[in-house]
Amino acid sequence: MPTIDLNSDLGEGFGDYRAGDDAAMLAIVTSANVACGMHAGDPQIMARTFGLARERGVAVGAHPGYPDLWGFGRRVLPYTPAEVERLVAYQVGAAQALATYAGHRITYVKTHGALGNLAAANDEVAMAVARAVRAVDRDLSLLAIALSAQVRAGEALGLDVHQEIFADRGYTEEGLLVPRGQPGAMIEDPEVAAERVVTMVREGAIIAGSGKRLPTPIRSVCVHGDSHYAVATARTVRARLEEAGVTVAPFRPAA
Amino acid sequence: MPTIDLNSDLGEGFGDYRAGDDAAMLAIVTSANVACGMHAGDPQIMARTFGLARERGVAVGAHPGYPDLWGFGRRVLPYTPAEVERLVAYQVGAAQALATYAGHRITYVKTHGALGNLAAANDEVAMAVARAVRAVDRDLSLLAIALSAQVRAGEALGLDVHQEIFADRGYTEEGLLVPRGQPGAMIEDPEVAAERVVTMVREGAIIAGSGKRLPTPIRSVCVHGDSHYAVATARTVRARLEEAGVTVAPFRPAA
Amino acid sequence: MPTIDLNSDLGEGFGDYRAGDDAAMLAIVTSANVACGMHAGDPQIMARTFGLARERGVAVGAHPGYPDLWGFGRRVLPYTPAEVERLVAYQVGAAQALATYAGHRITYVKTHGALGNLAAANDEVAMAVARAVRAVDRDLSLLAIALSAQVRAGEALGLDVHQEIFADRGYTEEGLLVPRGQPGAMIEDPEVAAERVVTMVREGAIIAGSGKRLPTPIRSVCVHGDSHYAVATARTVRARLEEAGVTVAPFRPAA
Amino acid sequence: MPTIDLNSDLGEGFGDYRAGDDAAMLAIVTSANVACGMHAGDPQIMARTFGLARERGVAVGAHPGYPDLWGFGRRVLPYTPAEVERLVAYQVGAAQALATYAGHRITYVKTHGALGNLAAANDEVAMAVARAVRAVDRDLSLLAIALSAQVRAGEALGLDVHQEIFADRGYTEEGLLVPRGQPGAMIEDPEVAAERVVTMVREGAIIAGSGKRLPTPIRSVCVHGDSHYAVATARTVRARLEEAGVTVAPFRPAA
Repeated sequence: MPTIDLNSDLGEGFGDYRAGDDAAMLAIVTSANVACGMHAGDPQIMARTFGLARERGVAVGAHPGYPDLWGFGRRVLPYTPAEVERLVAYQVGAAQALATYAGHRITYVKTHGALGNLAAANDEVAMAVARAVRAVDRDLSLLAIALSAQVRAGEALGLDVHQEIFADRGYTEEGLLVPRGQPGAMIEDPEVAAERVVTMVREGAIIAGSGKRLPTPIRSVCVHGDSHYAVATARTVRARLEEAGVTVAPFRPAA
Repeated sequence: MPTIDLNSDLGEGFGDYRAGDDAAMLAIVTSANVACGMHAGDPQIMARTFGLARERGVAVGAHPGYPDLWGFGRRVLPYTPAEVERLVAYQVGAAQALATYAGHRITYVKTHGALGNLAAANDEVAMAVARAVRAVDRDLSLLAIALSAQVRAGEALGLDVHQEIFADRGYTEEGLLVPRGQPGAMIEDPEVAAERVVTMVREGAIIAGSGKRLPTPIRSVCVHGDSHYAVATARTVRARLEEAGVTVAPFRPAA
Repeated sequence: MPTIDLNSDLGEGFGDYRAGDDAAMLAIVTSANVACGMHAGDPQIMARTFGLARERGVAVGAHPGYPDLWGFGRRVLPYTPAEVERLVAYQVGAAQALATYAGHRITYVKTHGALGNLAAANDEVAMAVARAVRAVDRDLSLLAIALSAQVRAGEALGLDVHQEIFADRGYTEEGLLVPRGQPGAMIEDPEVAAERVVTMVREGAIIAGSGKRLPTPIRSVCVHGDSHYAVATARTVRARLEEAGVTVAPFRPAA
Repeated sequence: MPTIDLNSDLGEGFGDYRAGDDAAMLAIVTSANVACGMHAGDPQIMARTFGLARERGVAVGAHPGYPDLWGFGRRVLPYTPAEVERLVAYQVGAAQALATYAGHRITYVKTHGALGNLAAANDEVAMAVARAVRAVDRDLSLLAIALSAQVRAGEALGLDVHQEIFADRGYTEEGLLVPRGQPGAMIEDPEVAAERVVTMVREGAIIAGSGKRLPTPIRSVCVHGDSHYAVATARTVRARLEEAGVTVAPFRPAA
């Protein structure tokens, strides 16, 4: 059985606003994708989140998104790929600095929300993200949606790429996420989600709703932090993986 | 005669807005203080400014300010020193990343506007800035207002500190800037400004309006970019320094 | 026994962020102070909050604050009184339009957070707020902290002013709020808060911690929406007032 | 000959940033479309612009755009029509309040940039804008691109609609603007622009590049404020209209 990472988006508040239960998630996950101040997060929250992750032994990555606090980074904004490059570079640099400031170190980049979805589907945007990461620090890994354009772009530029699956989302026969709102898109039952994750990890394959297997080198499982069943799902996924003999650990620890 | 640097604030637009004549100033100065996206600047402008500076052989520094685009960083916002630390760390990291992205490298940090003035006068804020710089990258220099609290704080923390004077501002007997609005605060005539700079550099001292000399290791002269006489003053200061046999060069080149 | 209004700050989310339990509070209070998009709130949230208040028969007022989403309007920003006037006018106009859009009508203005505290203590800022309200619509009432500079300013300019007390805060002998952090500042027990409110309303006086009475024409009681005991306090205050024979109703209904 | 209005976008700065030469344009135009703080403008600039327009006898309208200072409202943001309604309502209310505050009164609404272009082409968005205006104040006029979806939407909802042509833009045979970047899109020569405007006004028709006439009740001519030839074009258009016997006056004065 492989070593598997559990990752979640954290530090997604802004000022006095809070989103998700960071403390609970930090006790479960092995990697924290930390918002960088554009779709969520601010320098104070970033420093605090990096510091808490360090104390918990949780690896950290920059989680850049569109500059859209109003939309929480969930809307595609009309930036060119060249503009996306600089938006990503900016946020990665800010995250590096605040992680260092907090005594930690980011080891990877994972794109957020609408930017992540676009970079998964669009080769140009995927290349823009990969170029930004390579330009800022080619030693950073890329955590990418399995089988996506980001995997291809990152590998084409020589980055260290790791693929993730989603614990609470259904898959199409092409290995894409079933769009929200369609039947089978969301898996709300923690036990169902956990069992599915264990099967996919054991088989080394994404399993579509139809049962079709798509062999994939799964290195991480994303457990979202902002649904009402998020903490329960994360906890159950971790427990079932460990019961199955899987070592749950960061795909890229800081030291 | 010492080597003297000429520095100016650049990249102070936002989106479609422009501030100052960056192209003209980049042909004159030897160091560019680049806004980091909080009081001015954005990732696109930062990348462009760092790229132009590289082409011109101009050294670059991060120019962090308060998160106050509305007030252009010229108002003191009620942040605690601990919050200032993280605001500065964030901006320095973003600037490092975008300079690297543009093929350049920042070698120093200079605080902007109200943050700069407060850090010059207030030991706690000066220490907060110095701690942020040291935490993010202790190899970065600090460009500080001569004789200010920032000089003491930077040196206390073991940073490489360089002191600057202002070409177009009068000084009090304490070595402080005459506040704007008071007689002798602004020196608008480029020749008067240039002659005064040459004298101060030659004598190694700040010269108050009263004629009093305050010995100071002057390493840089700040020529502001946003007054109507800015370019003329910068050009004249540079010409008169060179005529006086002063080598005009960055205090800390990138390579 | 007089008629008493219960007011609370509502609509204080931003985009996907939420603050407080608006639905619960709308079932208890008689007036909702609606954030106007500068310290919290956005046009979507404003329209929704005004619409819900209309359905519930809850009166609505504009709740302008400093343009400081980051600080939730709780920090004093360095605006001049003249600038405050325009900030308030802008927000009042936006609230009028969105209330009208939602089929409701704002009948009053209450300042938020740091702006409210400053306007309570500072005559110049109090006059700036009152001038803004009078200039935009002199038919709007002003809901003001009892015995504050805002009461004097509003009355001096001929506005219809109503005074409020706080259910969960202690008072000094001068009728000011005991500053947060000092003993007696916060009253967390809903029954204690409710009993105190009933006594003050019955006696027509603010009662200091020392027992001193300051006669005050109390028209409204503010029950904050963002503490963990907020809903319980609001509910208990309303119940005890009604048991005491007080009619709980808006000080200024929309129609 | 009809009475013709000249309109221009004004008050498009933000904080210390400036855009266009407002003072020069206010001496030429008869209607000022004032930015409302979302794509440009802020409460201080709005109050100042409304006050200057009042002194000059220039009519004023609200000029709402997308909340996108970074993109100056020139990018289509992914808002639903229902969201656009509330964005427009918010901005119209803020403009009403600040105009009133400055002793003036807005008499119309004209959408800005990408929102204007989308509302000209898309019936749903055009209806959203018209619904917002009608809901906030059905006495406000709508200033709309000639022959556009906004004309149809405004008239369908019973609003008072006025149609405008652009002095410096070429037209297709469908009466649409030739897209920027295509041949004939921009008319930079003030005399050519002015002559064309006079001919269109005299003939009561939009004239395509091909010479084709599209009969249109032209009530206003838009002279942009942000090109280097803007002031010259505005001045020349006004002079040539007056020489041709056209009365240049607001289509909807405030009083």
